[in-house]
Amino acid sequence: MMERKVDLRQWLSGADNEFLPHISLDCVVFGFHDGALKILLLKMQNLDQLALPGGFMMREETLEEAAIRTLEERTGLENIFLQQFHVFSDPARNDSATRLEDLKKLGMHPAKLEWFAQRFISVGFYALVEFSRVRPKPDVLSESCDWYSLEERGKLVLDHDQILDTALATLRMQLNHQPVGYNLLPRKFTMPELQKLYETILDKKLDRRNFQRKMLSYGILNVLDEKRTGGAYKAPYLYSFHLRNYQKALRQGLEAGA
Amino acid sequence: MMERKVDLRQWLSGADNEFLPHISLDCVVFGFHDGALKILLLKMQNLDQLALPGGFMMREETLEEAAIRTLEERTGLENIFLQQFHVFSDPARNDSATRLEDLKKLGMHPAKLEWFAQRFISVGFYALVEFSRVRPKPDVLSESCDWYSLEERGKLVLDHDQILDTALATLRMQLNHQPVGYNLLPRKFTMPELQKLYETILDKKLDRRNFQRKMLSYGILNVLDEKRTGGAYKAPYLYSFHLRNYQKALRQGLEAGA
Repeated sequence: MMERKVDLRQWLSGADNEFLPHISLDCVVFGFHDGALKILLLKMQNLDQLALPGGFMMREETLEEAAIRTLEERTGLENIFLQQFHVFSDPARNDSATRLEDLKKLGMHPAKLEWFAQRFISVGFYALVEFSRVRPKPDVLSESCDWYSLEERGKLVLDHDQILDTALATLRMQLNHQPVGYNLLPRKFTMPELQKLYETILDKKLDRRNFQRKMLSYGILNVLDEKRTGGAYKAPYLYSFHLRNYQKALRQGLEAGA
Repeated sequence: MMERKVDLRQWLSGADNEFLPHISLDCVVFGFHDGALKILLLKMQNLDQLALPGGFMMREETLEEAAIRTLEERTGLENIFLQQFHVFSDPARNDSATRLEDLKKLGMHPAKLEWFAQRFISVGFYALVEFSRVRPKPDVLSESCDWYSLEERGKLVLDHDQILDTALATLRMQLNHQPVGYNLLPRKFTMPELQKLYETILDKKLDRRNFQRKMLSYGILNVLDEKRTGGAYKAPYLYSFHLRNYQKALRQGLEAGA
């Protein structure tokens, strides 16, 4: 605990030189595990609420570099595919009185409170990651970092519920025109597994035959020359993503008959 | 000219108190005229390049409020529908040496150059407006504000070409899953006019029958009980947008059979 406090103090004393003021970023990290969508959240020290992993932008970084750096620190993964989706800029999102109270609870060095209590707009990023490869690690202000399901998360700090909801709405919209799944599924998967992923994100049942027809029409799947064995039912075909077409569709949008 | 300089000096002297540092916004304003897509651009004083209309965020404003205020000033239109689409944050987008040079050409008060020459990230907004209702008006740093076609615009200042290209790519992607046209077309329009708008934005020809079938399947059009008369050919049906369904589709995405 003592050591953490020293770290925190050191970190704080450099913050206003190292980072651009007024601009923060928050990351919504989605993983898929046991047929459910999970998100990565931090338990802040001395606060009862959870928070999205976030950070600040160094004076010579792009926002994307700052987000990748932040997520490397929180997940242990390099080169995470992440996407900006919205800037949250309501002046009331971190009103400075409440924020000062919260910061005091975190044991912040008084001289540095002002920098953190100023107005921040926050750029939201979302990332889709392989659940099993993530090694969650708390940051200097938090005591734990872990996966939560959407239902069990409770109310998040500041406007982080709104940030999460907007990320989810963006991801759902994206399902209609961009491919999703590459980082969320194992390399080989069955059509029912892909459908389950879509149903989980959309939070609704889909028609099996329509789904299969649509997915195959996009040209982003390879049908593999092997089947999943070992189950009680007829062995289902295995698929993998056709990476070149998948990446083209990420840039240009899905097109049936492509 | 003298009066403009006084205005500029006044405006500059208040800028660092009035606005949040490091954050600007740029607006890509699309209009549709004579079958072509037009964008609103400013001719900066003493610079040969054109620029997107832009501005800064007041200390108690949201980004959206700042963008609406900026566009009200440039177009004379109130309550413009605009949408954030990306934040541009490359540190090299406005390197301070070049920027200082440009600012000197604009005749800026030397004491205020520093505020403008610091690093800015810029939030891109795009807006679709009714061409005929816009009354373009230059800002304090520019000598004219006018419509340009995409081809005749030349190279824009800073990274404004990238901002414009990204807006256009976003608009094209959006055509696949959100309704477009309400602010770009007259209240009553024909199917060929709607198709022409889509073809102009996508910069490619579309199949007439597929287009009509798809558009009608979304449930966002009213077929009116009147036809366009006066032409040499068979009079085409007139349509208007079904506003409630249109707005629902803006929020939730287009769905065939809705």
